[in-house]
Amino acid sequence: MTTSQPSPTGDAEAENTLAGLGEFGLIARLTEGRRHSPATLLGPGDDAAVLAAADGRVVATTDVLVAGVHFRLDWSSPQQIGRKAAAANLADIAAMGAVPTGLLVGLACPSDSPLEVLSGLTDGVWEEARSVGAGVVGGDVVSSPTLVLSITALGSLQGREAVTRAGARPGDTVALAGRIGWAAAGWAVLARGFRSPVAVVSAHRVPEPPYAAGPQAAAAGATSMIDISDGLLADLGHVARASAVRIDVRTAALTVPDRLVDVGAALGIDPMHWLLTGGEDHALAATFPGEVPEGWTAIGTVAEGDPEVLVDGRVYDGGPGGWDHFTR
Amino acid sequence: MTTSQPSPTGDAEAENTLAGLGEFGLIARLTEGRRHSPATLLGPGDDAAVLAAADGRVVATTDVLVAGVHFRLDWSSPQQIGRKAAAANLADIAAMGAVPTGLLVGLACPSDSPLEVLSGLTDGVWEEARSVGAGVVGGDVVSSPTLVLSITALGSLQGREAVTRAGARPGDTVALAGRIGWAAAGWAVLARGFRSPVAVVSAHRVPEPPYAAGPQAAAAGATSMIDISDGLLADLGHVARASAVRIDVRTAALTVPDRLVDVGAALGIDPMHWLLTGGEDHALAATFPGEVPEGWTAIGTVAEGDPEVLVDGRVYDGGPGGWDHFTR
Repeated sequence: MTTSQPSPTGDAEAENTLAGLGEFGLIARLTEGRRHSPATLLGPGDDAAVLAAADGRVVATTDVLVAGVHFRLDWSSPQQIGRKAAAANLADIAAMGAVPTGLLVGLACPSDSPLEVLSGLTDGVWEEARSVGAGVVGGDVVSSPTLVLSITALGSLQGREAVTRAGARPGDTVALAGRIGWAAAGWAVLARGFRSPVAVVSAHRVPEPPYAAGPQAAAAGATSMIDISDGLLADLGHVARASAVRIDVRTAALTVPDRLVDVGAALGIDPMHWLLTGGEDHALAATFPGEVPEGWTAIGTVAEGDPEVLVDGRVYDGGPGGWDHFTR
Repeated sequence: MTTSQPSPTGDAEAENTLAGLGEFGLIARLTEGRRHSPATLLGPGDDAAVLAAADGRVVATTDVLVAGVHFRLDWSSPQQIGRKAAAANLADIAAMGAVPTGLLVGLACPSDSPLEVLSGLTDGVWEEARSVGAGVVGGDVVSSPTLVLSITALGSLQGREAVTRAGARPGDTVALAGRIGWAAAGWAVLARGFRSPVAVVSAHRVPEPPYAAGPQAAAAGATSMIDISDGLLADLGHVARASAVRIDVRTAALTVPDRLVDVGAALGIDPMHWLLTGGEDHALAATFPGEVPEGWTAIGTVAEGDPEVLVDGRVYDGGPGGWDHFTR
């Protein structure tokens, strides 16, 4: 039979693009030699994949990232972008109290995209997935004028109840796992054309979500939990509204790292603003009825009242409280 | 707390766009009033959804569709595009022998996209999902210069083994469920600027995959199965290679519908070419060791030999044998 792939052009440069390799050739290049996770019962290459869902349920979330909107190829390497895209999804799985089992990756890209960009993105997604014991179980690669990376993550609750945003109760303690403010500081540095300090720029490029803290919090009896992707106050606002409670954050409980103090001083920005409003570090916030588990820091309290988030008892007026993908 | 959504502009037109409504406002509009399927244990609105996976496994597949590449807003309504995008994924679930349980929808769109386009797309996805008893359990809406629709479908094997592309054995009968050639005829009509005959144009706009035939074939002992999305010969080629067998299709077993005969005559195209190479109807092809189940039509045989697909014993030379998203 004839095949649906274009024949090689003979032009070495064009061959190493989407157009040169064709859809199936490219997928073969992006999937070859990958080691699959134990949860992968049937990996990529068929109409669909099959994943283990041992307790009879599957947790699922999807995120779409667009070049020029959510990432910049001149700020980050393709591999860093792939890691960050995967991390955003994996953190959502962790925020339900689940462990990731697999990712599906949709890649829409210009047909002249170099193979090194596409394989860099894929490598990054695989690395981040592997760091939590998951694998890429399926995907799609298509031609598009704009580079768009769309990731779906699946996870297992391992028999636990899902921890939603809706369970916070008056009297609970609000706690935090992972770091906040770093990615926002990195963004501020990059936006001004600098490439250092490396620590904050790296934090913007590749977040380090506290994946294990999600299932840990669920096991410890967390009443609500959320992935901080839009900023601490904005995301606690989701919890406050879903749980119909008031949340009060104590800034005295938030330690501003020396590095952020330095960067803030250099840029003329109060670093506490980054901690309160910066997203993309993918820390986790949760509420606990009793003691806060190890690795978590108590940062506030839950009370009866209008569904809102106060900072030291007052409405925060230090600037935009979050992040909106359409107005950034 | 301050919110991350832009305040209304006061401009009624701008308010009914992504930019006017903001991410959260738009998601609220797109999800309100939806009825969820029994498999949906936790629907949209949290960090992730939770779906039933009763037999301890989940089937998962993802597809990305790009405006101008995979669909045209001047050829199809947003609702038709949504239905087709969902159908492509749901057919992949059926082709494993599974029933769909839920969809996740990623929508990347220009920030001035009218709400009616976005809600039309979403309505279409919901309608198609509901037609198979599934629901939309999660999603993401982001700003993008290009409209990209990315869908992930999840499904349940209901205790059956997955039917892959790799199990066809010499002596098996190749069979078909659903119609082929219709969407390709519709594409040919639309590409020439016509809008009728309605039957073929509708087939291009919204496919009618034989969803129930997938689980039925699995229960009846199908040894391999595939969703025909790239064309009968191209997709049987995947089965031939994965199973390391030769497949012979008998054109005498393929009935060319009168309607396609008429359209072919009008356009000067042999309609058999559409049946052999046209994708996007999302028919299912499967191989059976014994009798072909009701609703399926025997169209060929599996034999030992080089992994290839023959038509009436010969290599088909009637034109490109399939479809490549980068060279269309």
